[in-house]
Amino acid sequence: MAKGINRIGVMTSGGDSPGMNAAIRAVVRACAYYNTECVGFYRGFQGMIDGDYEEMNARSVRNIISRGGTILKSARSKEFLTPEGRQKAADNLRKAKVDAMVLIGGDGTFRGGKVFWEEHGIPVIGVPGTIDNDIYGTNFTIGYDTALNTVVEAIDKIRDTASSHNRLFFVEVMGRDAGFIALNSGIGAGAEEILIPEEDLGLDRLLESLQKSRRSGKTSSIVVVSEGDKIGKNVFELAEYVTNNLKDYDARVTVLGHIQRGGNPSCFDRVLASRLCVRAVELLLDGQTALMVGFVNNRIESCSLEKALKSKPDFNKDLLRISDILST
Amino acid sequence: MAKGINRIGVMTSGGDSPGMNAAIRAVVRACAYYNTECVGFYRGFQGMIDGDYEEMNARSVRNIISRGGTILKSARSKEFLTPEGRQKAADNLRKAKVDAMVLIGGDGTFRGGKVFWEEHGIPVIGVPGTIDNDIYGTNFTIGYDTALNTVVEAIDKIRDTASSHNRLFFVEVMGRDAGFIALNSGIGAGAEEILIPEEDLGLDRLLESLQKSRRSGKTSSIVVVSEGDKIGKNVFELAEYVTNNLKDYDARVTVLGHIQRGGNPSCFDRVLASRLCVRAVELLLDGQTALMVGFVNNRIESCSLEKALKSKPDFNKDLLRISDILST
Amino acid sequence: MAKGINRIGVMTSGGDSPGMNAAIRAVVRACAYYNTECVGFYRGFQGMIDGDYEEMNARSVRNIISRGGTILKSARSKEFLTPEGRQKAADNLRKAKVDAMVLIGGDGTFRGGKVFWEEHGIPVIGVPGTIDNDIYGTNFTIGYDTALNTVVEAIDKIRDTASSHNRLFFVEVMGRDAGFIALNSGIGAGAEEILIPEEDLGLDRLLESLQKSRRSGKTSSIVVVSEGDKIGKNVFELAEYVTNNLKDYDARVTVLGHIQRGGNPSCFDRVLASRLCVRAVELLLDGQTALMVGFVNNRIESCSLEKALKSKPDFNKDLLRISDILST
Amino acid sequence: MAKGINRIGVMTSGGDSPGMNAAIRAVVRACAYYNTECVGFYRGFQGMIDGDYEEMNARSVRNIISRGGTILKSARSKEFLTPEGRQKAADNLRKAKVDAMVLIGGDGTFRGGKVFWEEHGIPVIGVPGTIDNDIYGTNFTIGYDTALNTVVEAIDKIRDTASSHNRLFFVEVMGRDAGFIALNSGIGAGAEEILIPEEDLGLDRLLESLQKSRRSGKTSSIVVVSEGDKIGKNVFELAEYVTNNLKDYDARVTVLGHIQRGGNPSCFDRVLASRLCVRAVELLLDGQTALMVGFVNNRIESCSLEKALKSKPDFNKDLLRISDILST
Repeated sequence: MAKGINRIGVMTSGGDSPGMNAAIRAVVRACAYYNTECVGFYRGFQGMIDGDYEEMNARSVRNIISRGGTILKSARSKEFLTPEGRQKAADNLRKAKVDAMVLIGGDGTFRGGKVFWEEHGIPVIGVPGTIDNDIYGTNFTIGYDTALNTVVEAIDKIRDTASSHNRLFFVEVMGRDAGFIALNSGIGAGAEEILIPEEDLGLDRLLESLQKSRRSGKTSSIVVVSEGDKIGKNVFELAEYVTNNLKDYDARVTVLGHIQRGGNPSCFDRVLASRLCVRAVELLLDGQTALMVGFVNNRIESCSLEKALKSKPDFNKDLLRISDILST
Repeated sequence: MAKGINRIGVMTSGGDSPGMNAAIRAVVRACAYYNTECVGFYRGFQGMIDGDYEEMNARSVRNIISRGGTILKSARSKEFLTPEGRQKAADNLRKAKVDAMVLIGGDGTFRGGKVFWEEHGIPVIGVPGTIDNDIYGTNFTIGYDTALNTVVEAIDKIRDTASSHNRLFFVEVMGRDAGFIALNSGIGAGAEEILIPEEDLGLDRLLESLQKSRRSGKTSSIVVVSEGDKIGKNVFELAEYVTNNLKDYDARVTVLGHIQRGGNPSCFDRVLASRLCVRAVELLLDGQTALMVGFVNNRIESCSLEKALKSKPDFNKDLLRISDILST
Repeated sequence: MAKGINRIGVMTSGGDSPGMNAAIRAVVRACAYYNTECVGFYRGFQGMIDGDYEEMNARSVRNIISRGGTILKSARSKEFLTPEGRQKAADNLRKAKVDAMVLIGGDGTFRGGKVFWEEHGIPVIGVPGTIDNDIYGTNFTIGYDTALNTVVEAIDKIRDTASSHNRLFFVEVMGRDAGFIALNSGIGAGAEEILIPEEDLGLDRLLESLQKSRRSGKTSSIVVVSEGDKIGKNVFELAEYVTNNLKDYDARVTVLGHIQRGGNPSCFDRVLASRLCVRAVELLLDGQTALMVGFVNNRIESCSLEKALKSKPDFNKDLLRISDILST
Repeated sequence: MAKGINRIGVMTSGGDSPGMNAAIRAVVRACAYYNTECVGFYRGFQGMIDGDYEEMNARSVRNIISRGGTILKSARSKEFLTPEGRQKAADNLRKAKVDAMVLIGGDGTFRGGKVFWEEHGIPVIGVPGTIDNDIYGTNFTIGYDTALNTVVEAIDKIRDTASSHNRLFFVEVMGRDAGFIALNSGIGAGAEEILIPEEDLGLDRLLESLQKSRRSGKTSSIVVVSEGDKIGKNVFELAEYVTNNLKDYDARVTVLGHIQRGGNPSCFDRVLASRLCVRAVELLLDGQTALMVGFVNNRIESCSLEKALKSKPDFNKDLLRISDILST
């Protein structure tokens, strides 16, 4: 056990994602297992700045593994972007005798964590928790698998009504600047077309594809559109453009919105969160810092926060090809 | 058995709703049970006009009871609003030797059915199938219960993220001019406030209620807004109004949209559809016409289409009171 | 407001059912609304005997409306069956200044409540909370609708594998001595045969029905068996009997078991629980006692506990007929 | 394109698993994309022996991606275990001008496929479709992820009632001789103890663990037991043993059974099935044979059927450790 790591703090930051509670539980229980004290900070960095925390033990996290959201709440803190804010946080951690932090969130969280470690020497380990899967150093982020299931179930429902009415549906999904959710849920839902920011296929190709789909006898179609799509039109403009340029299309738009962030986590996300966070605690106890844990090639690995922040996750071009083949 | 009813047609019309397939199955199987032939018309009245139908037997409806949408597809037919359109439909029915029709849909469907019976003397029975529950003569329409569950599950997910971020969410739900979905799903989801077309409570009262809610220590709130709400603002304007008039509210909007129409029907909707449609077939075989079947006071009943069309379903004011009490 | 009703207790007793938390929440919030104190007793009557309770306010029940189980826990208390046990409970209630009780449970709960009122003069109102729907004085008990959905979703899954393998499945469902769950879930799941305690159709008729079903071209079948079925064989013996007496049947058994008691309550159960419990509190405040609240003919009603205990809920024979027609 | 591969057959064999329909769809659509004919054989090897098949095109697989089970049905064929049976199958394939086969199933399927290729020179590619995840050469089999979610959702429900009644539950899950389902669902459901065939921890350790769990204040517990567990007792005997050896435990048993095989596939399983099957078709068109496609280290790979059959998938011991830590 690393000298001085007697008390570990944990927090969740950025957009919430399903499995964050499973992650918190794993941090708390791993601490208990290793006879290390554990405290939970509320509302991410803001709770560190405000000294808003609570002692946590195995009981505090009972029956939360199955619940969406985060019992520690989440927030984006502007104050933590300033040296003064980070100083307050460091002072509070020292006052609370917190020797190290597990930070659950996305790249904003890791950026904050890295600076904090560099300025104040308090060890931090990052755990990737976001539905967007847009983090380098892990094949899957916590919450991504659940979000995919939520999206696919929603599109299954929309498919019922699209088929019944011979309609064209544009479904906007989350993902920030990354098309992971759109691409995978689009394949999973059997979408006829998928629009993602990584690959601008152009409006002409969309029209062509829809016409081909109709000629092949399809009377209804689903187009999945990533919120970050760079085609230059939002999903409503897109629907209008299509109906203006194609005859006899009855087009509808659904923006799935925040239902994608909530819900009971899938088994995959619960196990992922559990494994990543046990490792995070073990790394801290082993004297490590400024790392992010990840699930890489079916194993728990870690890489430096620096690397995780500098690199972009691989975008799997092959999936676009799969989507083309399957929407034949 | 009524003289001449040897072959019954069935169709689904208007917005699709979960349980329509269970309804079709029950019509087909009841016909088989009573040694009566059955044909299914596609796309509602339009299929009757186009003579677009198929023979159906017990096998045609195998394994559809659990599926959303309608295998007979649905549509709104403008042509059927004209005497010429209806004449074509009557001619087609006679050509196809269809002696009577079961019409599954909402009030537009029933209006069409009533005129059709009056003009052409082909017996019709209406079955209420719509998620909106806005039909007189039945306590529940087919699809309404499933839609409520879909909405409540969606709001449960939104609640996860609302709680995690201390946010105010405006969730728009379907229901056309009726507040049934909003009111019941709002109570079921524990919404802090519910806005429905039947009762304009005014914007002041909304602000007041949200402030009271915050004073009582609530850090997140859900407002369910019916799409037909007459408060004079759409849900986005409403959110803007509130954030302009209350300090420190982080408000988000989700329009649930078409996911509310799809999905596997609940047990309630499947049993309801089964019972109503067996009765519909039995009424036709018994020589009845121009009736709507309904579930009234825990029993299957029927009333004239005329009455169903002239009256409005009771709006249960007491539910508003319950909502007030429970959002204390 | 009734003289002396300043503090109301609430408990859940008997088998737990989904919606009990929504019921507790409604009692607590209705008390808050009427400026009445509220305490929750743990583990049903046993908590009254042990004086194991907690003050409850609007916050104590935050975010529980969507959760299965009961935060007050449930139990069956042998001690409460004795006069001494009930005396202890009465003493504890008086010590805790609890003036009246809302009892959420089934007939065992109501029997205890009635005796308690008669012996000790502490007003009680019963609320029907059980998945079995076997209570007179209400068309629906809290939890029944959710259990039906759970069963139907489970059988939908079993149907996937039954169809894929051309198998015969026997599925045992709960319901104690009543066939409500079996009958309604059987119709909802499109079961080929339903065996319920209210109607012993005999083994011959079962064999005949399965053979007819096969002759009609069906290659897989589902038989739903109520746990209380009185056909004289348990579900495993039944499966054996059938495979011994019919050729070429590959039969499997699934006992759904306790998954039927859990899960997030349906919207129907949440609204039902909310409405019944607001009424229960209002009845107590109005000086009433020894009543059970129920949902009868689409309205909240009440009847005496005596009547509820003496009578049996109507068994709807017509549903058996519907099942026969639809499994054609 | 390989000489002679103008027509590809596809079948599903062994126990059905969610995602098999998505797999069939991908084979059919990949064939269409590559201008190759496609036929589907019913009931696995048996349909090949019986010449029971159907031409398939893009339309045949419309809207099946979201459905559990397999539209081609599945079976275990004894006749295919004989040289005569395989000869018949080869004759039928030649008669039907089928040049190669995609075989979706588990190790029994691959064993049959390998012998068939060796004897008759008809190219085959295996695709791992089974909920058990017990196949070498892939990190995930099709259906496994969905089964994990089904199990975890079921245990979540059981947890509701276990918590409400302070009970000990033994939940038996599938997995044949492998503990993958038990171990991962056990961690995902937060089980207090997990019993798997790969690791016989002994009955003493189970008693000890349950006692420790109780001492730590837990009033309810879930023990997940793999059906293949080698502890020498079935799940009912296990429950009896525990209640005989520990005081005051109210133990219940649930055997989850066949619900684990059905249900709509998760997004993960749909995408996995799609990717594996596109690759399977491409390998055949590329002149390959006797391979199994798999998802290894986040990429689609292939290995020889021989290797897949000779080796056992790695059992991740670390997960047992994670389970121990988290059930603290």
